[in-house]
Amino acid sequence: MMNYKGILEAIYHEVKPLVGKGQIADYIPELAHISPRKFGMAVQTIEGELFTIGDAAEKFSIQSISKVFTLTMAMQLEGDRLWTRIGREPSGTAFNSLVQLEYENGIPRNPFINAGALVVADIILSHLGDARQSVLEFMRQLCGEAEIDFDHAVAHSERETGFRNAALAYFLKSFGNLNNDPTAVLDAYVHHCSLSMSCIEVARAGIYLANKGKLLGNDGRIVRANQAKYINSLLLTCGTYDAVGDFAYRVGLPGKSGVGGGILAVMPKKFSVCVWSPGLNASGNSLAGTKALELFTTLTGMSIF
Amino acid sequence: MMNYKGILEAIYHEVKPLVGKGQIADYIPELAHISPRKFGMAVQTIEGELFTIGDAAEKFSIQSISKVFTLTMAMQLEGDRLWTRIGREPSGTAFNSLVQLEYENGIPRNPFINAGALVVADIILSHLGDARQSVLEFMRQLCGEAEIDFDHAVAHSERETGFRNAALAYFLKSFGNLNNDPTAVLDAYVHHCSLSMSCIEVARAGIYLANKGKLLGNDGRIVRANQAKYINSLLLTCGTYDAVGDFAYRVGLPGKSGVGGGILAVMPKKFSVCVWSPGLNASGNSLAGTKALELFTTLTGMSIF
Amino acid sequence: MMNYKGILEAIYHEVKPLVGKGQIADYIPELAHISPRKFGMAVQTIEGELFTIGDAAEKFSIQSISKVFTLTMAMQLEGDRLWTRIGREPSGTAFNSLVQLEYENGIPRNPFINAGALVVADIILSHLGDARQSVLEFMRQLCGEAEIDFDHAVAHSERETGFRNAALAYFLKSFGNLNNDPTAVLDAYVHHCSLSMSCIEVARAGIYLANKGKLLGNDGRIVRANQAKYINSLLLTCGTYDAVGDFAYRVGLPGKSGVGGGILAVMPKKFSVCVWSPGLNASGNSLAGTKALELFTTLTGMSIF
Amino acid sequence: MMNYKGILEAIYHEVKPLVGKGQIADYIPELAHISPRKFGMAVQTIEGELFTIGDAAEKFSIQSISKVFTLTMAMQLEGDRLWTRIGREPSGTAFNSLVQLEYENGIPRNPFINAGALVVADIILSHLGDARQSVLEFMRQLCGEAEIDFDHAVAHSERETGFRNAALAYFLKSFGNLNNDPTAVLDAYVHHCSLSMSCIEVARAGIYLANKGKLLGNDGRIVRANQAKYINSLLLTCGTYDAVGDFAYRVGLPGKSGVGGGILAVMPKKFSVCVWSPGLNASGNSLAGTKALELFTTLTGMSIF
Repeated sequence: MMNYKGILEAIYHEVKPLVGKGQIADYIPELAHISPRKFGMAVQTIEGELFTIGDAAEKFSIQSISKVFTLTMAMQLEGDRLWTRIGREPSGTAFNSLVQLEYENGIPRNPFINAGALVVADIILSHLGDARQSVLEFMRQLCGEAEIDFDHAVAHSERETGFRNAALAYFLKSFGNLNNDPTAVLDAYVHHCSLSMSCIEVARAGIYLANKGKLLGNDGRIVRANQAKYINSLLLTCGTYDAVGDFAYRVGLPGKSGVGGGILAVMPKKFSVCVWSPGLNASGNSLAGTKALELFTTLTGMSIF
Repeated sequence: MMNYKGILEAIYHEVKPLVGKGQIADYIPELAHISPRKFGMAVQTIEGELFTIGDAAEKFSIQSISKVFTLTMAMQLEGDRLWTRIGREPSGTAFNSLVQLEYENGIPRNPFINAGALVVADIILSHLGDARQSVLEFMRQLCGEAEIDFDHAVAHSERETGFRNAALAYFLKSFGNLNNDPTAVLDAYVHHCSLSMSCIEVARAGIYLANKGKLLGNDGRIVRANQAKYINSLLLTCGTYDAVGDFAYRVGLPGKSGVGGGILAVMPKKFSVCVWSPGLNASGNSLAGTKALELFTTLTGMSIF
Repeated sequence: MMNYKGILEAIYHEVKPLVGKGQIADYIPELAHISPRKFGMAVQTIEGELFTIGDAAEKFSIQSISKVFTLTMAMQLEGDRLWTRIGREPSGTAFNSLVQLEYENGIPRNPFINAGALVVADIILSHLGDARQSVLEFMRQLCGEAEIDFDHAVAHSERETGFRNAALAYFLKSFGNLNNDPTAVLDAYVHHCSLSMSCIEVARAGIYLANKGKLLGNDGRIVRANQAKYINSLLLTCGTYDAVGDFAYRVGLPGKSGVGGGILAVMPKKFSVCVWSPGLNASGNSLAGTKALELFTTLTGMSIF
Repeated sequence: MMNYKGILEAIYHEVKPLVGKGQIADYIPELAHISPRKFGMAVQTIEGELFTIGDAAEKFSIQSISKVFTLTMAMQLEGDRLWTRIGREPSGTAFNSLVQLEYENGIPRNPFINAGALVVADIILSHLGDARQSVLEFMRQLCGEAEIDFDHAVAHSERETGFRNAALAYFLKSFGNLNNDPTAVLDAYVHHCSLSMSCIEVARAGIYLANKGKLLGNDGRIVRANQAKYINSLLLTCGTYDAVGDFAYRVGLPGKSGVGGGILAVMPKKFSVCVWSPGLNASGNSLAGTKALELFTTLTGMSIF
C-alpha cells in the first residue's frame, strides 16, 4: 500500500526552497495580497482516504480550476452538442488570445482557454437561467458541504480590470457564439473564477474524475464513466495553458491550473490531488506546485504514461 | 480648362449599368434600408467651383469617411504625439481585425482601421471632454453650414449590433491604449460614423486636403500644409480597407471609403471629390463609386501618379 | 486474462464498413497506388504475446510513425539538450506549417511536426555521420529482424515532390537550426518516412514504450524508463497532427499516425498496438484505424484516462 | 526653374552627420565590405538634365531596386495576367515573411516582397528561357550603356547564404506558383539583386516611370503610360518594406529601396532620383538616403501629395 503520508512529507521538504519563488498573479488586484509563502497539498483516494500537508485546509482563489467544474456542468446539460460551439484541441496560443478566435470564426479551441469557458458560462446561463447560484450548488454537491462560496471582492476586482475577457466576450458575441448578454456572461465567469476553496475541498470535488464519474460512497453519479475519461483527456491536452506538453512531460497526469496558484490533477482509478502555492512560473502555473506534482508522480511511480 | 461638367456626365452614363450592383452593407440594420439605385458625385475645386451630378445633394451615412475628419481633429489636438498610440502603416488585414492588435500590443496599425479610429475618438474625448458635439461643430465649420448632424437611428443601430467594435475597444483598453471608458469611446465612435452628409457637403468638407490645409477663400486654416500632405499620404496607403493597392492602382488618388457607399478622394492642389452609391464590391468599397473615380482620373488625366 | 483475439475479431467485424472509405494520401505519388481495401492490426503485449488480424503481416509505408523512432535515437544521442532545438508543446497548426516556425524563430513546436523531425534527422546526421544506415540498423534492432528496409521508390517520390518539406528545411537552416546541408537532411528525412514495415513489425518495434524503455525478454534497454514515459506524453499531446485532442478524447492512448494509414499506439505497462488502413480522415489519420483503436480501448476497458 | 544643383548641395550639407550612421546589411557577406561613409545622389529630369552630388557615379549593389525593373519586364511579357499570380496590396509583414504566403496559399502580396520578385523571375525565365542575360540587356537598354553588369561575387554570396529565399522559393513551388526549378529561379533572383550600378545609372534607368513609360528623347517606349502609373502606385503602396506608410508620410514619392543602401524615387512628369548611402535604418531603408529624399521633397516643394 502506498505511503502517501510519507511521500507528501518528502515533497514538502524538497519543494520548500521553491515556495515564495515565482510571480504572484497581480493583474487581478485582489489576488496580489496573498502571501507567497503558502504551500498546501491534499490527496483524495477513491477508497475515501485523505492525506494532507501544509496549508491544505486554507481557502484560496481557484480561478481557472473552476473551468473543470463548469465544463462538467455543461456536459451534463448539453452532452456532445457542446462540441459544436467549442473545440477539443490544444490552442498553441496564450490562454487569452483573440488571434485563434479570429482565425477560427469564434469557435474557441477548447473549454479551458478563457474564450471556451465564457461559452461554457453562456451555456449554463441559457439552461439554468442563472450561472452563479447553480454553480455554487454544484460545487457544494461535489464537496458535500454547504459553505463553499464565491469571493465577491475577487470577482469584483476581476470584473473591473478584466478588459481582455470583456474583449473576448464581445468578440464571441460578434461571431454569434454567445446567446446571452456579454455582461451577464462576464459576471458569471468572474464569479466562477472567484470560488474560494481549500486544497482539501478541490481534491474532494475532483474525485469523480478519478472515480469513473461518480462521487465516493453512494453519493451518486456526476457524469458517465466515458465522460469522465473525456474530461481527463481534455485536461491532459489542454489543461495547463501553453505548458501542456511540459506538464504532461514532467508530471504525466491530467491537470488544471489556476493563476491563484492551485493545480488539480487526477490519476484515473486512483486519486485526485490538489496542490496550492501562489508563486507562478513563466507559463502561469504554480512553480512549487508543479514541482510538487512532478515529485509526486516520481515518488509514487504513478503517472498515466 | 478642365470640362468637369462634361466629364461627370460621361461618367454618369458609363457607370449606370453598375449602379444597383454589389452588396448593400446590412450588418448595420439601419443602413440596409437604403435604395441601391442611388448615385451621386460632387467635385469641389480649390478655385471654389462645384460640379455635381445625380444624387449629389442627398444625405447618406458617411461612416468611415468620418475617420478622415476625426483624425484631422486629433492632429490638431496632439500633433505628432499621436503616433505613439497609432501606427502609420497599411494593415495588411481586415479593417476590424483583432489579430494585428494582439501581435502589436494594442497599437493600431493606422488611424483608418476601426481600432485606430477608436483611439482617435478617445483622444478627442480626453482633450475636449466631449466627442460628439465637438465633432459636429468641426464638421459644420468645414462645410460652412449649421445643419450637419448625426443620424441617431444609425448610431443606435450600430451601437446595438457592433459587438466586434466593442471587442476592439475592450481589447485596446486591456493594452492601456484607451484612457476613457470603452462604452463612452464606442458611443462617440458610432456617432462619428453616423454623420449624415451629401456628396456636396463631403467634397466641400475635404477641400482643405487639396488646399494645403486651408478652407477656401479666407475661411482659415484647418491644419498646416505639411499635415495635409501627411493625411493624404495616409489616405493613399491606408484609406480603402484591404484594397489600398487596388485603389491606388486603379484610381491613383488618396481616398477614404465608407460602408455607406461614399468615397472621398483628393487631388492635391486641384480638387476634392465625393462619390456615393450604396452597392459595395468585395473589398467593401462602393462598386459604382470606385469605377466612377477610376473613370474620373482617366478622363481628367489627373492622378498623383 | 484479456481476450485480445476475440476483441480483434469484434473490431474487424465492426470497422469493415469503414475500410475503403476516406482519402488515400496522394500527394506522394508512390503512395497513391495502394489498395484502399487493406486493414490490419497487431497487438504486442509486454508478456510477449502477439495477436493479429487482417493484413497485419503486410508491409506498408510507415511515414510519420518513423518520427517516434528517430526521436528515440535523438534522445539517446542528445538527452535533454535536444529540447534547446525543439519544443515539446502541441502546435495548434498544421503539421507542415511554416507560420509557427516564423513566429518562434525556427524552433519547431515539437518533434512530431515535420520541422521537428527534420531537426531530429539533422541531429542523427551530425552524431553518426549517416542518418540512413544508422536508422535502418536501429529499426532492425527494435524488430529483431534484418530485413527491415526503406522503400526507395517512395523516398524518391517524396523527395521529388516534397517542396514544402524543402521549404521547411531551408527555413530551419535560415534560423541556424540545421547544422547539415538541407539537401542531406531532406534525403535522410524522406528515407525515414519511407520505411516499409508491417503492423506486426511496428507493434514489436514500439514495445519499449510500453515496457519502461526495454525490449522484451533480455534484449536490452532502448531508453531509460522516464524517457519512455516522456515519449509517451509527447505522443499523447503532439502525435496525431491537429487531431491530438480528438484522438486523446476518442482513443485515450499515446499514439502516432502516418499518412500511409498506419497508427502506432501504446498502453504503458500493457501493450503496443499497430493498426493500418490507407483511407484517411479529414485530419490525415487512418479513418478505419482510428475507429479500430477507439473500439479497442472501449472493449478492453484500457486507456490511460 | 528649380535650382536642383543648389538643393542637392543643401541636402548634402545637412545629411552629412547621418552618413556612416545606421547598420550596413551584413547578412550578405559580400555587402559587409562596403564603406559606410558613402553618399551619392542623382536627379534625372524628363527634360534630360542630370544633377549629381557626392558619390553619384560610384557603383553599388542595387539589390531590391532591381525588383522595379524585373516587374516592368514581367508587365511587358504578361500584362494583367501577372496579377493572377501576385497581389497588389501592401503586405503588412516583413519583406521575407513566409506567414503571409501560407495564409494566402502561395500568392505573394505584391511584386516587391521577395516572394513576389521570385515569381517575377520565374515569369521572365518561362518567357525568355533565360533570366540573366535578358535582364542585363534590358538594364543596358534603359541606361543606354553597355557596361551594366552583375556582381557575381555578391550573387554567389547571396546564393550561398540566402536560405530564407530558398525557403520562399520552395514554398512557392509547393503551392504551384513557380513553373521552373526553384534553384534556377533563385539563381536568376540573386543575379538581379547583384546588379551593380551608380546613382546616375539608376536614376536614368528609372526615368520612364516619370516620363509616361517612355525613355527620354526618341529612345522608345518601355511600357504604356497607364502601366507606368500603375508601377508608381505599387511603389508608393509597397515599395519600401514595412515602412511604406512612413516613407509616403515623410518623402511623399513612389520609391523603391534596396539593402545595398540605394533608393530610387519618382516624381511623375518631373524626374527620377536615386540616392545611395549604405547605412540602413531599422526598417532596412538607407538612413541618410531617406532623410535626403525627405529634404528633397521639402526643398523642391514637389511631392505627389
